[in-house]
Amino acid sequence: MTIAVIYGGTRQNGNTEILTEQAVQGLDVERIYLKDYQIQPVKDQRHTRDGFQEINDDYNLIIDRVLRHDILVFSTPIYWYSMSGIMKNFIDRWSQTLRDPKYPDFKARMSAKQAYVITVGGDEPYLKGLPLIRQFEYIFDFIGIPFAGYILGNGNKPGEIFQDKEALFAASQLQKKLNHHAEQV
Amino acid sequence: MTIAVIYGGTRQNGNTEILTEQAVQGLDVERIYLKDYQIQPVKDQRHTRDGFQEINDDYNLIIDRVLRHDILVFSTPIYWYSMSGIMKNFIDRWSQTLRDPKYPDFKARMSAKQAYVITVGGDEPYLKGLPLIRQFEYIFDFIGIPFAGYILGNGNKPGEIFQDKEALFAASQLQKKLNHHAEQV
Amino acid sequence: MTIAVIYGGTRQNGNTEILTEQAVQGLDVERIYLKDYQIQPVKDQRHTRDGFQEINDDYNLIIDRVLRHDILVFSTPIYWYSMSGIMKNFIDRWSQTLRDPKYPDFKARMSAKQAYVITVGGDEPYLKGLPLIRQFEYIFDFIGIPFAGYILGNGNKPGEIFQDKEALFAASQLQKKLNHHAEQV
Amino acid sequence: MTIAVIYGGTRQNGNTEILTEQAVQGLDVERIYLKDYQIQPVKDQRHTRDGFQEINDDYNLIIDRVLRHDILVFSTPIYWYSMSGIMKNFIDRWSQTLRDPKYPDFKARMSAKQAYVITVGGDEPYLKGLPLIRQFEYIFDFIGIPFAGYILGNGNKPGEIFQDKEALFAASQLQKKLNHHAEQV
Repeated sequence: MTIAVIYGGTRQNGNTEILTEQAVQGLDVERIYLKDYQIQPVKDQRHTRDGFQEINDDYNLIIDRVLRHDILVFSTPIYWYSMSGIMKNFIDRWSQTLRDPKYPDFKARMSAKQAYVITVGGDEPYLKGLPLIRQFEYIFDFIGIPFAGYILGNGNKPGEIFQDKEALFAASQLQKKLNHHAEQV
Repeated sequence: MTIAVIYGGTRQNGNTEILTEQAVQGLDVERIYLKDYQIQPVKDQRHTRDGFQEINDDYNLIIDRVLRHDILVFSTPIYWYSMSGIMKNFIDRWSQTLRDPKYPDFKARMSAKQAYVITVGGDEPYLKGLPLIRQFEYIFDFIGIPFAGYILGNGNKPGEIFQDKEALFAASQLQKKLNHHAEQV
Repeated sequence: MTIAVIYGGTRQNGNTEILTEQAVQGLDVERIYLKDYQIQPVKDQRHTRDGFQEINDDYNLIIDRVLRHDILVFSTPIYWYSMSGIMKNFIDRWSQTLRDPKYPDFKARMSAKQAYVITVGGDEPYLKGLPLIRQFEYIFDFIGIPFAGYILGNGNKPGEIFQDKEALFAASQLQKKLNHHAEQV
Repeated sequence: MTIAVIYGGTRQNGNTEILTEQAVQGLDVERIYLKDYQIQPVKDQRHTRDGFQEINDDYNLIIDRVLRHDILVFSTPIYWYSMSGIMKNFIDRWSQTLRDPKYPDFKARMSAKQAYVITVGGDEPYLKGLPLIRQFEYIFDFIGIPFAGYILGNGNKPGEIFQDKEALFAASQLQKKLNHHAEQV
């Protein structure tokens, strides 16, 4: 089984990235930094005569990379009590892929995966990060991916996540689990 | 008192827009359609030496229009159990404005307003729209705007919102309240 | 189809009761006032050798009455951001009934029903009542009853619910729906 | 500073108790097992002429013990996606104490404390325990106690909590924090 990390952060080595790297330490993972790509917002054309129009950006490239893996780690800082806008735009586009004849089995392929969420925030994330977890719960439920687990971390200034011992421990536990998955064919 | 509607939808005359227009019927409101503007995602530069770098897009233009009004109506369809990506990108940029010397009193000015949320979704919005309401609760709390009320509506195909009698009634009640506000100096 | 209202309030003619009575106006419903009965808290004996021990109180009487109906309306004031303790004790006892040989098909019978929730609170119920709705969502999901809808109302002092026009309208809409159900065989 | 643990479980040595005991290991704490006391449900008499009538049960005894301490640990298994009914009845009674002339400074005294929550459930507690956390958030906010932290654990059969390494680690971290508090005057 192989692992992709989808990074929604917009700075390098942010707290969320640090925590995520603890969880994938020593593992062979594909890292997708959404900030390095152009992803247009979805246009809701579900009900127009011609349906969704192809958008000429990096989205399909990324979704192709995502689809190759068995385990997806969604790693996003908490921005305004939810995922970053760039990660939201990425997920919003799934509405288009669900109707894209080039991806006839999108939902089926997604639902064969497992998803984890890693997220760090600076304003009481253990409470105020919970709506984000709930949102992912509904997202994964809709697309059919089992929600295998999440880690909430507390951090604001660069490196502050190293103070959050519970989050670091949870990352080390997740690392063991992912390592175990990675060894399975 | 004056009213701005901030539209996060990406199609014209979507259900959320229809419902919102019921709530502002006959009132003099400024409508801001985020889909018609270029708003770059925030870049988290809070901790870089030079801080946030100016971004050359339509964001400041829009925030200037928003700041002129006393009542803000955030109107967004539910995309993947949260606000649309374009509305999220708009709000994410507040992090920059909060530190922008050109807007020294951004938080104070925002906190003098009142906010409403109108949102429509097609997948059990009365349950699965709740994390979005919670997110707005935290957002408004952080920026200091009283959360004056929200309307959740049920609709998917164009016009389906007209079936949701409770949402329409709530919109008519909100219209009265907004009308009352509008008449105040 | 027949309807039971399960009342969790502890005063007569409280706001929740008033609102609920609007929703069942003119209908033939069975009203169960939990406050008028003795219901012991559950004792978690799932893992003891002899399992749950029979409790000599009014619970079985009530669950028998509940089981006779097709539509259940759970009507509870919001106490401390959740259902009243007496309603919680009633629901906690379901754990026992699920393992009670006298009710071999408890879950199957429950899952053939439909559930509504009506709840009124005085401290921003439209926001702070949402965890209660979520809790019912999980409860109904576990026992298999479709969550057919809910009404949140705002009220504190006796009769204050009459100020909440949206809640009253929602109750009148629910009355139509229940009336329609009641007419079905 | 002194510590009270308020136990809401109804079996001995349940998973929640095991986890909580890890968090208070070696500390001098007062343990209050609600199951060993008679606590009547609140009767909402806020709006009756004579107000709340004294109830002859163990509640005041317990609230007196609670009030003596600086740190409160609310320890409850997750029953039907919330606290146990006996803990809910205990908290519901605060409405009476808030108006009881014998406790003129109840809210002020409560708000000088700190609160922790420890809770264990068997049905995806990391997701389905979140409404309970939110409920406690609102409860503590109302009464004015800072919500200092919580631990969610996963367990069903006796002793299963020992499999939840993250919860055990969080308990050991909490133990250090409580130990630190305990050493303060």
